[in-house]
Amino acid sequence: MNDRHQLTCPIADFLNMFGDPWTLLIMREAFYGATRFTEIQRNIGVARNLLSERLSRLVEEGILEREDVGVAGPRYAYHLTKKGQSLATVFIAMVQWSNEHLRKRGDETVHLIERKTGRKLKKVELLGSDGRKLKWNGIAALPGPGADEVARDRMEKAILAALAS
Amino acid sequence: MNDRHQLTCPIADFLNMFGDPWTLLIMREAFYGATRFTEIQRNIGVARNLLSERLSRLVEEGILEREDVGVAGPRYAYHLTKKGQSLATVFIAMVQWSNEHLRKRGDETVHLIERKTGRKLKKVELLGSDGRKLKWNGIAALPGPGADEVARDRMEKAILAALAS
Repeated sequence: MNDRHQLTCPIADFLNMFGDPWTLLIMREAFYGATRFTEIQRNIGVARNLLSERLSRLVEEGILEREDVGVAGPRYAYHLTKKGQSLATVFIAMVQWSNEHLRKRGDETVHLIERKTGRKLKKVELLGSDGRKLKWNGIAALPGPGADEVARDRMEKAILAALAS
Repeated sequence: MNDRHQLTCPIADFLNMFGDPWTLLIMREAFYGATRFTEIQRNIGVARNLLSERLSRLVEEGILEREDVGVAGPRYAYHLTKKGQSLATVFIAMVQWSNEHLRKRGDETVHLIERKTGRKLKKVELLGSDGRKLKWNGIAALPGPGADEVARDRMEKAILAALAS
């Protein structure tokens, strides 16, 4: 990745944290309720040293928390923190997109339901201030206070181009 | 990734398509409105051969479409297809999560607004059938028709564990 953009783009920030596929699979395990090292390792088939390194990073970053559940010596369980739990929107959006676009209808591998009612989960949508669905091009990106010159320049050009079109 | 899970998990399906960080950055460029090879290359700082290979894959998969805009010889522009556009939910959810959790308040690099009104975009939420916000644990995953034995067994165990808790 380009260092310039690494500093001032939320997608680059996200990739710095989750760009490694193992990390996203570890998060998937956490959402499925897997808490133990051996369980996660078996389910995703990752090498012990890699898993250990990735879990430590997620704990350091406050996305997972580590609890000692050992009776004879330390033994750890990993749980999602609030920060980790709030990634659910990203994961559910990925699952819904994959189900719809990468699988044939009737060949979905997972159906998401609302636990309380058993109903199929609504599709995650982009909603406007009037509650109506927004399309991708109904949204614009403005430079925030943390944007550098390059990012700022770029977003401003995109807005001007959109206004002119 | 483990082949077993590769076949029957929508997150693994998603990673097979977008697990490579370059691919997600190319998609970011498309959402920002970059259409030309040289423009995308400059913005993300990727090698020509890698970019060429990734763009071809995205075109093959129907996520981008390639238009010949050349006047003297072929010259291509890349546009999001409907399938590509519908990834906006995933990207916006990532941007909002990154802004909220990876940056200090007041140091966001991007502010998303609703183009029509100029208002700050609402946060993407998981909504139940009654329109109320759902938490991550208000959702359950049931095996779909495309799930293999391993995935099926696993989701059923997770549901039983949740019912017992």
